[in-house]
Amino acid sequence: MQATLITIGDEILIGQILDTNSAYIAQKLNEIGIEVHEIISVHDSEKHILDALEKAKANSDITITTGGLGPTKDDITKQTFCRFFDDTLTLNEEVLAHVEHLFANYVDTPISEMNRRQAWIPASCEALFNRFGTAPGMWFDRNGHVTISLPGVPYEMKALVENEVLPKLQKRFQRPFIYHKTILTIGLGESAIAERIEKWEDALPAHIKLAYLPNLGKVRLRLSAKGLHGNEIEEDVNRQIDTLLPLIADIFAGFEDQESLEVRIARLMCEKNLTLSLAESCTGGQLATSFTKHPGASGFFKGGLVTYATSAKTEILGVSAQTIENFSVVSKEVAQEMAVNARALFATDFAISTTGNAGPTKGDSDAEVGTVCIAMASKAGVVSAKFSFGKNRERVVGKAVNKALEWLLKEISKK
Amino acid sequence: MQATLITIGDEILIGQILDTNSAYIAQKLNEIGIEVHEIISVHDSEKHILDALEKAKANSDITITTGGLGPTKDDITKQTFCRFFDDTLTLNEEVLAHVEHLFANYVDTPISEMNRRQAWIPASCEALFNRFGTAPGMWFDRNGHVTISLPGVPYEMKALVENEVLPKLQKRFQRPFIYHKTILTIGLGESAIAERIEKWEDALPAHIKLAYLPNLGKVRLRLSAKGLHGNEIEEDVNRQIDTLLPLIADIFAGFEDQESLEVRIARLMCEKNLTLSLAESCTGGQLATSFTKHPGASGFFKGGLVTYATSAKTEILGVSAQTIENFSVVSKEVAQEMAVNARALFATDFAISTTGNAGPTKGDSDAEVGTVCIAMASKAGVVSAKFSFGKNRERVVGKAVNKALEWLLKEISKK
Repeated sequence: MQATLITIGDEILIGQILDTNSAYIAQKLNEIGIEVHEIISVHDSEKHILDALEKAKANSDITITTGGLGPTKDDITKQTFCRFFDDTLTLNEEVLAHVEHLFANYVDTPISEMNRRQAWIPASCEALFNRFGTAPGMWFDRNGHVTISLPGVPYEMKALVENEVLPKLQKRFQRPFIYHKTILTIGLGESAIAERIEKWEDALPAHIKLAYLPNLGKVRLRLSAKGLHGNEIEEDVNRQIDTLLPLIADIFAGFEDQESLEVRIARLMCEKNLTLSLAESCTGGQLATSFTKHPGASGFFKGGLVTYATSAKTEILGVSAQTIENFSVVSKEVAQEMAVNARALFATDFAISTTGNAGPTKGDSDAEVGTVCIAMASKAGVVSAKFSFGKNRERVVGKAVNKALEWLLKEISKK
Repeated sequence: MQATLITIGDEILIGQILDTNSAYIAQKLNEIGIEVHEIISVHDSEKHILDALEKAKANSDITITTGGLGPTKDDITKQTFCRFFDDTLTLNEEVLAHVEHLFANYVDTPISEMNRRQAWIPASCEALFNRFGTAPGMWFDRNGHVTISLPGVPYEMKALVENEVLPKLQKRFQRPFIYHKTILTIGLGESAIAERIEKWEDALPAHIKLAYLPNLGKVRLRLSAKGLHGNEIEEDVNRQIDTLLPLIADIFAGFEDQESLEVRIARLMCEKNLTLSLAESCTGGQLATSFTKHPGASGFFKGGLVTYATSAKTEILGVSAQTIENFSVVSKEVAQEMAVNARALFATDFAISTTGNAGPTKGDSDAEVGTVCIAMASKAGVVSAKFSFGKNRERVVGKAVNKALEWLLKEISKK
C-alpha cells in the first residue's frame, strides 16, 4: 500500500517556509501501515500539478495533496482537480452553512462573496469536514485510486487527517503492518557504532532494515520492518534489539519512538515527585522551552531564569562578582554558583545552569566561541563541566541543550 | 534556469525528520536567479533514486541531491551515481588526506577502513571540499546538465553550498534575475485583505506574482518577479509596492525579506539604546528564545524569568498573593504586576509578561484553554490585555509570542 504526497505552493519551492505537513502525514500513514513512496513539492501551476497527479496515480494507490485551497487568486487547486477529473465546481450546501457559521461566530469581518466561494467544490468528490477553517477537504475515489486534497494550514490539515482521512483510509484499504523502533545513543560516532555492531547488522533478516541518524552528538538507530502480521514483525524487531542492546549498553539512552529525551525526563520527574529549575545564559530560554512545549510541564518544572546580562547573574541570581572576576563569566565556577543559587531560589530538587559563548563573535566574554559550561545542582551537591561545541551558533546551543538533558536523565534514572 | 532538488533518505518519508535542507538550498538558488522546479524526497533505493535523477535531468538544468553519503551500509548514493553515470569508485587522495586530518585532530576514536572508504568517489566527478565532514560533495557536468551530490547533515551541506556550489553555478550558467519582496501585515484576515486590494491585484503586470501566506495572526504578502535585468524587476516590484502601501497602511508591519519581527526589534532597541526583560509563564521561555536565537541579543536583552509555578511568581517575581487570589493567576492584573516587577528587577526600559493557559487541559488555573494575558511595562506605565488564542497548545503559545512582539515593535517604533 503506497501513497504519494504532493505539496502545492510556491512558498516551499522558494524556501520561504518548511514543509512540515508532509512529515506529519507520512508519520500518520506509517502508523496505519501505509508507506509513503514519494513526497513532491510543486508550484501553483496547473500543468505542474496535473503532471504530479498523473505520476502519483501511476506509482501509488493513494495521492494526498496539501495547499492551494485558499480563497485568494493564487490558489488554483480546486480548478485543477476539476480539470484532472473532468468535473465542475458546484455549491455544497453543507459546506456553505459551515462557512457562514464560522463567520457569524468567530470572525470580526462580515462574510464576503470570496468566503462563500469556498463552498463550491468538484461535484464528484466527497467533502471532508474542516472544523477549523473554510476550505473543506476533498475525497475522490476513481478506478481503485483514492485522491485526497487538504488545506495547507497545518492545524486545519492535522484535524482533517485525524478525524476524516485516517478513519476513511482504514476502512477503504487492506493494509500490511509497518513497525519502526528507534534507539537513541549518546557518546559515540556513527561509523564507530557501525563497526562495533557490524556482525549483528550483517545477520539482520531481509525484512528488517537498519538506518543511522546522527544529530548534534546523538546517533539514532532505527529498525524498520514490514509484514502481514503486526505481532510477528514487532516480535522480530524486538528479538533483534535484545541481541543488539548488550553491544551498545554504554551508549544506550532509551527508545525514541516512545518518548523524546525531555518527555522521558518529564515522566520520570513526575513519577518520582522531583522538581526542576533552570538558570540559562547561552541557551537563552531554549532549555526551558524544551520542557514547557510539552503539556504537563507544570508537574515538575517550577521555572527558570534567563540571565543574559552579567548584571542579571549577580544581582538577581546572586552569583558573586568575585567569582566572575576570578574565573570569568564562562567558567565552571560561575555555572556552579548559578545552579546552586537557582536551586535555592526556586526551592527545587534539581537545578541546571548554562553559561557560554554561542558566537558568532567572542563578544564581551573571554571564552572562545563554542565554549559552554554546564552545572547541575541537587541535594548531593553540584557537578559541572566545560565543553567545546564548535563554531556554529545554532549547533552550539542545540548541543548544550542536549548535553544538559542527557545529564539530567542519567541522574534521575539512577534514583 | 531550473533546478530539481532530490532528498534521499527513508527518514523523511516516514516523517521522522523534517526536510530543512531543501528550503535552505531553494532560498540560496533563488538568490542567484535559479528557480526550483520541483523538490522530491525518495527512499534509499537504487531504482527510486535513478528514476528521480532521470526525471530531474529531463525537466531541469541542474539536479542537487542531499543525503545518502554516510559511511554506513544504508547509504547508497555513491554507488547509485556510478550506475547512473556508468562510472566506478576510485580513491581520491586529496579527500583521503582530509579525512585522515579530521580524525587525527578532531575525533577521539581512531580512523577505520569504513572512514577511509569516504575518500572513494566516482572517477568522473569533481570532489567539492567538505571542511566539516568526511563525505565530499560531488559535481558532475554531462551534456549541459549539472548534477551535484551533497551530504545530508545540514551544517556540512550549508558550508558546501556557500563555499563551493553557489560560486561554481554562478560561473557555469547565465541566469535571469529573480526578485521576491514580502510584506508583513498584522490584524486582518487573508480574504479581507484580498477584497480590499482586489483592484490593485488585478492590475499587476504579468511578470509579477502575488501570494498570500497566513500564519498565526500574521498574513504575509509576497511579490515575486523574474526578468533579464535585476534593476528593472526590482524597480517594477517596488513601484507596485508604492501603490499598495497606502491601501494597507493600518495593517502594515514591515518588510520581511529584510528582517524578521524580532530582528527588527533588536535593531531598533540597540539603535535607541533601550533594554528589555521578560517574565514568562505560558510562553515558557519561547519569547526569550525568539530574541536569543539571533546573534547580538546581549546588546539589549538583559534577561527574563520563566515563572511556571505560581510560587515562582510570588516568591521570586514578587507578585502579590492577594492579586492572584482576587483576580486568578491568568489575569490582566497578575500580568501587569509581573511586567512591572520584572522591569524593576532587571532594571530595563521595557518588560513584557505573559500568563495564560496553553492547554490542552485547564490544569490548576481557572482560565479557559487558550486564554492569555500579556502586559508591557515601561516608564510610561503598564498596559495589558486578555486574549483568546484557540485550543491548540502550540498555536496558543505561538500567537502569544507574536502578539507580544507586535506590541513591543509598535511601542519602540513610536519613540
